[in-house]
Amino acid sequence: MSKHLKKRSEDYSKWYNELVVKADLAENSAVRGCMVIKPYGFAIWEKMQAELDRMFKETGHQNAYFPLFVPKSLFEAEEKNAEGFAKECAVVTHYRLQNDPENPGKLRVDPEAKLEEELVVRPTSEAIIWNTYKGWIQSYRDLPLLINQWANVVRWEMRTRLFLRTAEFLWQEGHTAHTTKSEAIAEAKQMQEVYATFAEEFMAMPVIKGYKSDSERFAGAEDTFTIEALMQDGKALQAGTSHFLGQNFAKAFDVKFTSKEGKQEHVWATSWGVSTRLIGGLIMTHSDDSGLVLPPKLAPIQVVIVPIYKGEEQLTAISERVAVIVKALRKRGISVKFDDRDTFRPGAKFAEYELKGVPVRIAFGGRDLENNTVEVARRDTFEKQTISQDNVVDFVSNLLEEIQESLFNKASDYRKEHTTEVNDFKEFKKVIKNKGGFVSAHWDGTEETEDKIKEYTKATIRCIPNDAKQEAGVCVFSGKPSTKRVLFAKAY
Amino acid sequence: MSKHLKKRSEDYSKWYNELVVKADLAENSAVRGCMVIKPYGFAIWEKMQAELDRMFKETGHQNAYFPLFVPKSLFEAEEKNAEGFAKECAVVTHYRLQNDPENPGKLRVDPEAKLEEELVVRPTSEAIIWNTYKGWIQSYRDLPLLINQWANVVRWEMRTRLFLRTAEFLWQEGHTAHTTKSEAIAEAKQMQEVYATFAEEFMAMPVIKGYKSDSERFAGAEDTFTIEALMQDGKALQAGTSHFLGQNFAKAFDVKFTSKEGKQEHVWATSWGVSTRLIGGLIMTHSDDSGLVLPPKLAPIQVVIVPIYKGEEQLTAISERVAVIVKALRKRGISVKFDDRDTFRPGAKFAEYELKGVPVRIAFGGRDLENNTVEVARRDTFEKQTISQDNVVDFVSNLLEEIQESLFNKASDYRKEHTTEVNDFKEFKKVIKNKGGFVSAHWDGTEETEDKIKEYTKATIRCIPNDAKQEAGVCVFSGKPSTKRVLFAKAY
Repeated sequence: MSKHLKKRSEDYSKWYNELVVKADLAENSAVRGCMVIKPYGFAIWEKMQAELDRMFKETGHQNAYFPLFVPKSLFEAEEKNAEGFAKECAVVTHYRLQNDPENPGKLRVDPEAKLEEELVVRPTSEAIIWNTYKGWIQSYRDLPLLINQWANVVRWEMRTRLFLRTAEFLWQEGHTAHTTKSEAIAEAKQMQEVYATFAEEFMAMPVIKGYKSDSERFAGAEDTFTIEALMQDGKALQAGTSHFLGQNFAKAFDVKFTSKEGKQEHVWATSWGVSTRLIGGLIMTHSDDSGLVLPPKLAPIQVVIVPIYKGEEQLTAISERVAVIVKALRKRGISVKFDDRDTFRPGAKFAEYELKGVPVRIAFGGRDLENNTVEVARRDTFEKQTISQDNVVDFVSNLLEEIQESLFNKASDYRKEHTTEVNDFKEFKKVIKNKGGFVSAHWDGTEETEDKIKEYTKATIRCIPNDAKQEAGVCVFSGKPSTKRVLFAKAY
Repeated sequence: MSKHLKKRSEDYSKWYNELVVKADLAENSAVRGCMVIKPYGFAIWEKMQAELDRMFKETGHQNAYFPLFVPKSLFEAEEKNAEGFAKECAVVTHYRLQNDPENPGKLRVDPEAKLEEELVVRPTSEAIIWNTYKGWIQSYRDLPLLINQWANVVRWEMRTRLFLRTAEFLWQEGHTAHTTKSEAIAEAKQMQEVYATFAEEFMAMPVIKGYKSDSERFAGAEDTFTIEALMQDGKALQAGTSHFLGQNFAKAFDVKFTSKEGKQEHVWATSWGVSTRLIGGLIMTHSDDSGLVLPPKLAPIQVVIVPIYKGEEQLTAISERVAVIVKALRKRGISVKFDDRDTFRPGAKFAEYELKGVPVRIAFGGRDLENNTVEVARRDTFEKQTISQDNVVDFVSNLLEEIQESLFNKASDYRKEHTTEVNDFKEFKKVIKNKGGFVSAHWDGTEETEDKIKEYTKATIRCIPNDAKQEAGVCVFSGKPSTKRVLFAKAY
């Protein structure tokens, strides 16, 4: 495999696939559509998990764990949800293998070990969780119930891509129960805010907050709130969703509570999730033709120090000075790696850390010993500066903040340049085809129009923005009256 | 359901089952043998995970994630391992459901959506991981490969019990690859040490370190190192195992490396794991007839403060003083809950926290306002003391340490009293039957003898202790010569 990546301008999709593998983030496995998340990729996921988990707990949620399997009879209890996932679910039918009499040394399914009821591998856990909540909720005193689960789920997708769409993926799924409709809606909106804050402050990925049209809504939800990001190729990525489920699951699983007034009522529900797909979004928001670019807040290694030396003696002298810098940086909570491997030359190390997106690289050479300096290079802009060793800790600390901010601003500028208001369908098609990005247009509110627009352009309604202002207009496709602009884009 | 637990002396097994449910740790689900881990139980698991994960990383391991499914052809590649798990594995055979024409509103497996090759839900991940490692290991420079995974696994056990033996459970599984046999053995032993340290220092659960006899060894391993704990009912619990896998998986999956000398060699492997079963061990080591007893280092809430007041005004005055104590305790890294709910009386709160095993309870009453005191009660001994508010932080901080140590000592004393050296089989049977615990006895080293002893007494060889001294003797059953005592016990 060549060391160089395909250029984004030549083949964005190939660039992405190569980058994920070459930067040691993930790879395809022996199981169709399932990925192996490699240690470097998993370290990014761990950083994401830690921040999200903290945010969930700060908003009053607790973690729990529910079974991987959903008995078929529970799976089908909420009809729309069942219909939405039936076409892509892995099903366990047997619980034993036996020696295959026709193929010595091989195993086969034991026909005697057929399950009485098939088990669906969870594509999402509403069914098993609401069946459980039935036993947990009796009174208004048991509410709200605010629970999150970190888990693997399986959706048997036909076309898969590492991180973006895989048969098995890791995610978190929040499932909450409330006494009133308004409280449940407030919860769903709160979690949309939490996701938006995480995306913007940690991933440095600007997002549009909005809600989905009927056809794009989660199966079984009354309202789906979403955060939508824009990738460098002009395609949108749905980065997280939060659903107001109404009383659909409470009714399907007969979950009622006794209110303060002594009345029996069905509870109101939400669910919300983000997944390892976020890593795909992170990559496609910031990375470049040289490899990964990581925002400092999620980089497993924030600073790498590479010694450039002639002979053992010089290495020892450099190492002593580096140890002081490493210690001081760590004291500030900055993660640092000193790469003194003697099996690779400095140039090879530079290339490796560029590919892996380490935000700041410090080179420490023989002359730096004399001059009390180091060379500090930032990954995102490739800018280099020579800095006194006395100031390096402050300098790097500030630089990391500056990089975090600069990545967000760059992505915001890109999105601004790639968000176009259009008022007729010819223009709509031209923008989607040539420029890409978000197209803000009037829509008549019908599914027919959505379908037609998708058929002609492959663009879908990503969301109706939360902050869309009332504005009299006509649908870009049908010419019928409309009161709001919605956001269209081709999407992952 | 009654508030009181079954007494341990009346029915230990029932006591355990009731405690797990009443203390809100876990419950059975709609899926046979699979449990729901409730928030309070999961909070204990999160504490365990955090400490273990830190210890794994300190010993050089990185986390990664491998697929849930193992294609049948990979599963069967290492014969002994396949044979060991074939009888209890869940198998996915289809990837879609469809509307059932015979039952409107119901779904059935779509016969068209049969997988070409069945997928085994991982009972353990050696097969899928070693198939992956083949692509990662070329040279000695790629070794050692030190990887851990936090995951769910499924073993279709016929008899299940919450935490102790469930069809699905959560665990971590380390999988490492090395250039030499001795390095792999050292790794497997190191992880046994890590597990022992965790069990003793955090769980306050003393363990015996040893290795397994041939018949008790992990399927596919050359050597299984184990930590064995003793529960309050005199039964042993295998709490963690670390396996030296030799070159078995490397050969089954053809994983070779080029040595420094340029030779092609198969790598040497280990795997090691602990699971949510540890929570069962934690419960059965320390808890009593009043409920859970938790060691402070793993308690989700270390200190609970309950106000005892008459009227709003007094509550306000108490709350102000409590806020100062809470802040000071948190500053010391102690987790504190102030339970000022007005829907429960103090007595009901006391009972709840006793049941849930909160190590320290502070009661703050009206008289304490005047006297500048609080009442501090420890959960393990029920001892109470009145303390000046000026000293409460130091006092509680020391008390938590004392409780942690005291729980370990109590469990160690119990084990000492329940470890019996025996030299003839009549005595062996008597001890196993009447007293329980570990029986230290000579064994002739044959599987036949092990089987016979198990048949007569239900006791198995838990391990050959690492520190067993050479000692000439005769097998307690066969009378044949033996050089070491081994530990027998009935086990979970």
